[in-house]
Amino acid sequence: MLQDFRRRTTPETAASRLPPLRRAMEEAGVDGFLVPRADAHQGETVAPRDERLAWLTGFTGSAGLAVVTAAQAALFVDSRYTLQARAEVDGTRFALCRHPEDKPADWLAGVLPEGGRIGFDPWLHTFGEIDALREALAPHGLELVGIHNLVDAVWEDQPEAPRARIRPHAAALAGRSAAEKRARLAGELRENDLAAAVIAAPDSIAWLLNVRGGDVARTPVAHAFAILHAEGRVDLFADLAKVDAELRSHLGNEVAIHVPEDLGQHLAELTGRVALDKARTPVWIADRLAAASGAAIVWRTDPCILPKACKTEAEIAGARSAHRRDGAAMVAFLAWLDRTAPRGGLTEIDVVRRLEEIRTATGALRDISFETICGAGPDGAIVHYRVNEATNRTIAPGDLLLVDSGGQYDDGTTDITRTLATGPAPADARRRFTLVLRGLIAISRLRWPEGLAGRDIDAVARTALWQAGLDYDHGTGHGVGSYLGVHEGPAGLSRRSTEPIRAGMILSIEPGNYREGLYGIRIENLAVVQPAEIPQGGERPMHAFETLTLAPIDRRLIDAGLLDPAERDWLDAYHARVAADLAPLVDAEDAQWLAAACRPLADGP
Amino acid sequence: MLQDFRRRTTPETAASRLPPLRRAMEEAGVDGFLVPRADAHQGETVAPRDERLAWLTGFTGSAGLAVVTAAQAALFVDSRYTLQARAEVDGTRFALCRHPEDKPADWLAGVLPEGGRIGFDPWLHTFGEIDALREALAPHGLELVGIHNLVDAVWEDQPEAPRARIRPHAAALAGRSAAEKRARLAGELRENDLAAAVIAAPDSIAWLLNVRGGDVARTPVAHAFAILHAEGRVDLFADLAKVDAELRSHLGNEVAIHVPEDLGQHLAELTGRVALDKARTPVWIADRLAAASGAAIVWRTDPCILPKACKTEAEIAGARSAHRRDGAAMVAFLAWLDRTAPRGGLTEIDVVRRLEEIRTATGALRDISFETICGAGPDGAIVHYRVNEATNRTIAPGDLLLVDSGGQYDDGTTDITRTLATGPAPADARRRFTLVLRGLIAISRLRWPEGLAGRDIDAVARTALWQAGLDYDHGTGHGVGSYLGVHEGPAGLSRRSTEPIRAGMILSIEPGNYREGLYGIRIENLAVVQPAEIPQGGERPMHAFETLTLAPIDRRLIDAGLLDPAERDWLDAYHARVAADLAPLVDAEDAQWLAAACRPLADGP
Repeated sequence: MLQDFRRRTTPETAASRLPPLRRAMEEAGVDGFLVPRADAHQGETVAPRDERLAWLTGFTGSAGLAVVTAAQAALFVDSRYTLQARAEVDGTRFALCRHPEDKPADWLAGVLPEGGRIGFDPWLHTFGEIDALREALAPHGLELVGIHNLVDAVWEDQPEAPRARIRPHAAALAGRSAAEKRARLAGELRENDLAAAVIAAPDSIAWLLNVRGGDVARTPVAHAFAILHAEGRVDLFADLAKVDAELRSHLGNEVAIHVPEDLGQHLAELTGRVALDKARTPVWIADRLAAASGAAIVWRTDPCILPKACKTEAEIAGARSAHRRDGAAMVAFLAWLDRTAPRGGLTEIDVVRRLEEIRTATGALRDISFETICGAGPDGAIVHYRVNEATNRTIAPGDLLLVDSGGQYDDGTTDITRTLATGPAPADARRRFTLVLRGLIAISRLRWPEGLAGRDIDAVARTALWQAGLDYDHGTGHGVGSYLGVHEGPAGLSRRSTEPIRAGMILSIEPGNYREGLYGIRIENLAVVQPAEIPQGGERPMHAFETLTLAPIDRRLIDAGLLDPAERDWLDAYHARVAADLAPLVDAEDAQWLAAACRPLADGP
Repeated sequence: MLQDFRRRTTPETAASRLPPLRRAMEEAGVDGFLVPRADAHQGETVAPRDERLAWLTGFTGSAGLAVVTAAQAALFVDSRYTLQARAEVDGTRFALCRHPEDKPADWLAGVLPEGGRIGFDPWLHTFGEIDALREALAPHGLELVGIHNLVDAVWEDQPEAPRARIRPHAAALAGRSAAEKRARLAGELRENDLAAAVIAAPDSIAWLLNVRGGDVARTPVAHAFAILHAEGRVDLFADLAKVDAELRSHLGNEVAIHVPEDLGQHLAELTGRVALDKARTPVWIADRLAAASGAAIVWRTDPCILPKACKTEAEIAGARSAHRRDGAAMVAFLAWLDRTAPRGGLTEIDVVRRLEEIRTATGALRDISFETICGAGPDGAIVHYRVNEATNRTIAPGDLLLVDSGGQYDDGTTDITRTLATGPAPADARRRFTLVLRGLIAISRLRWPEGLAGRDIDAVARTALWQAGLDYDHGTGHGVGSYLGVHEGPAGLSRRSTEPIRAGMILSIEPGNYREGLYGIRIENLAVVQPAEIPQGGERPMHAFETLTLAPIDRRLIDAGLLDPAERDWLDAYHARVAADLAPLVDAEDAQWLAAACRPLADGP
């Protein structure tokens, strides 16, 4: 699980890799080929074998698409990754395009004549994606054709597919047995007159069957596909190397395990109405199912998405416990940083390593939950910054240090950001930090009527910044899984989130502010959505957040004069809770540090 | 313009009116007929001639649809009007259905056998409406057929169509000449490769040509249709009785006036791509255009909607002036109410009449801008309450009185709600009033980044109520025209408003709270969206509201202890501005009242 700070690819990559790909295109009889970042499961992290985009272009971001023709090539990345793509990719070989402003279809129409055929691997694209692209290409007389993967055909030292063991996840942690989940979802299928649902998302399969895997870094899932039948049976398609007797016994008789090669045959034999998720299912599966004479495709959201997001009482209890453990590790880390950083000489990589060591020392860490973001001074202003050996910065005492990190534990997934002073901070940084903190407090304290979506309440985290003429260009928060993906749908806290927020969902709350070239500020807690206590005289059922994350917020960066009494009370109460919950879990030296870090604001900085 | 407090129709209406309608249906060979509230222009207010739904059913609300078959009939109204429909309509003859929960198509499918033909008047339904209904009926084997209006065929004393004179609206008030507007919009048509746009919304035509009319109450528009050509010419179709020499001279050579009967011929002769607004154009027009061999329909929002909503500097100056005048009238009204209400005996109708007399006495009132809402005690809790002689309530000293009213002036449209104490108010009413006021202040003070929609900021007006477990079931605000409709698209402040808010838009801000059976609270100001002053250290362009409405907010209902210092400052500054702006415009007695009503909060209640 150790983080790797090497740059795995270089801009020179493309020089040697484009020619063989183009030869393969010619042999396959296509004029273009699509190389997405995605694997067959559309997850955020992919296995080394699936790093086709990085292999071809050098680009290592978490989303992107290369489009290659005989004479030209383009890389489409979103605004988060424009700078990174420029640094990592040979711009003379790949035109760098911004998605979604620039459209791959328009680019293809500009470089290919009518009648052109563009190949794609039907495992790596969702039905929705190919459907939209096909429609956009049709007016230009360009055709999309599903073929074998041409990168795989020419990538000589392509790693093997991962084969990590699939492990049972205790029902006591999940709060519901896999049998119960299957029965409930099968009931929903029957109510909707559906014969089956095909499930392609690995975290959905992990949730449904109460299993965890290790096929990709940071997210404990196994690459697999599943068919849930209306009678409650499941057909699971996974490499048998991942399956042992313990798993077979856990899954029981109702779950049949097949080799992945059998998926096509099973799809062909399905009858009746079959639910597919347009945005989560490879077009390969949709094609097979469309060809099955007895089946009719019904487009439905993956039925696991919503129940997975609404945590059970056991999962919420697990989250609390994981956050206490992770909070104690954060205290050890923050105390160490406070002792060490002012001496100077510490680098971003030192900090990332130390934090991971401390989390590992809990003895419970399964993995970190994502590559740690650790940005000192100006690096903190790069929202998706991941340090590597080339960018590694020595922390100058006085630099603001932004650390965004998390852990995967059996009982829960954590994700926490703290922005830290390593010396006297400029007044403007303290002012901005306090405005960001006011946003965190405002939404942490909010009650809101049931049924609202993230879009309806996102503003609450921003008004303090807005009043000062400031804002941040990312969402306020995202869903978080229960020992699963650190980014989990369907709900979030942002202008793009229109899915209702429901009780039991765990969301991050992470307002920020960034001064390019100087520093970045972000404060992030996880919180679980709970029915709110109805205050006296209240009439409406409301939701509220219970904050899960336990770690001091750097008092040296707070301008207490900018907080109103209710905000000060919130912060003092939060710190009192952090101190009370974590003091028993840390050593004496750290306990002393913790007590000081959690003093009431009235005690001064 | 005087308000009419009689109930024009009774539940007995249907007994005599359904039989002739059913005979006409039989003669026309249809098994059902649709009777909507709408006229051919889809406005909120309709002419007496167009009150077909009220004539048939007795229902006088502003939205609804009756569906009649040989044996059955149903009335569909939305949740605002459920109670009113129950009171006004004979439930033994009309099944009362809730729209949109109940679907007319489902109801029809339940009562008509396959093969049934349902007639409708293609002038009274938009293309979008009929298109959706046709799609919903098709699976049931039911057909929609456009025919002549069967209500008109049997309504013996149906009023004549209105023929109010169309008057020029001064370019000095509009801030832009009609020629400029035509040129700008024609340019946009050319940029989009459009040959013409058909405009069916009367307020769009009024805005485009700088004219006002009098065909319906409360909104100064003329019933007409227009075709804007890409060269900037306009064909206007209106009853020539509305047109005089002054108007012809104002419109000039580029605007040709035709009788409405010629519209079909002109549509048939159009060529090229023609823009139609799906939601605002009668299906009659779409059908004619679809049949025109040379024209292709392109669905586009009416091109006047957005520029009409973004007021010019002259319109904003006019709005300020209208609000000073209207504010002075409000002061005279509020002072009168304060002198009169405590004596007892005053009824809701007395209050409505007195307020209208005072507005009329300004000498500038063209009309009130909507039927005044005046609800004493429990009537205030009925959000769409309109008093009539049957419901008229005598105000008991101590009742909360909610008055929502407005005026149409040449220079602007006003819409203001004040909730007033007529004696000592209960503590809970003061607490709720103060929470509503906090919502008004929060959104009035807000700065927000350009590009956001009402949905993105609506929460700001509600958080104070939410924290107390309270809310209100209506939007926070709506767009307002410039001497045009008091409800105007495209933007608003509500969860349903996803259209970006732009500089120059006038919006209402009207949070509320309602205790059924006891009282209603609402405070409403109009405000114009302006680029915000960028505070020191601010980085982003922001929008902010400039409050237009000038009238005291009842200090006796404020629990100042619930306001924070910034809120108190806002209110004191607002009251200081109200006092300074209005004192010169009111008589000595009212000026004294005004000074007292606008004292700083620190002076006590």
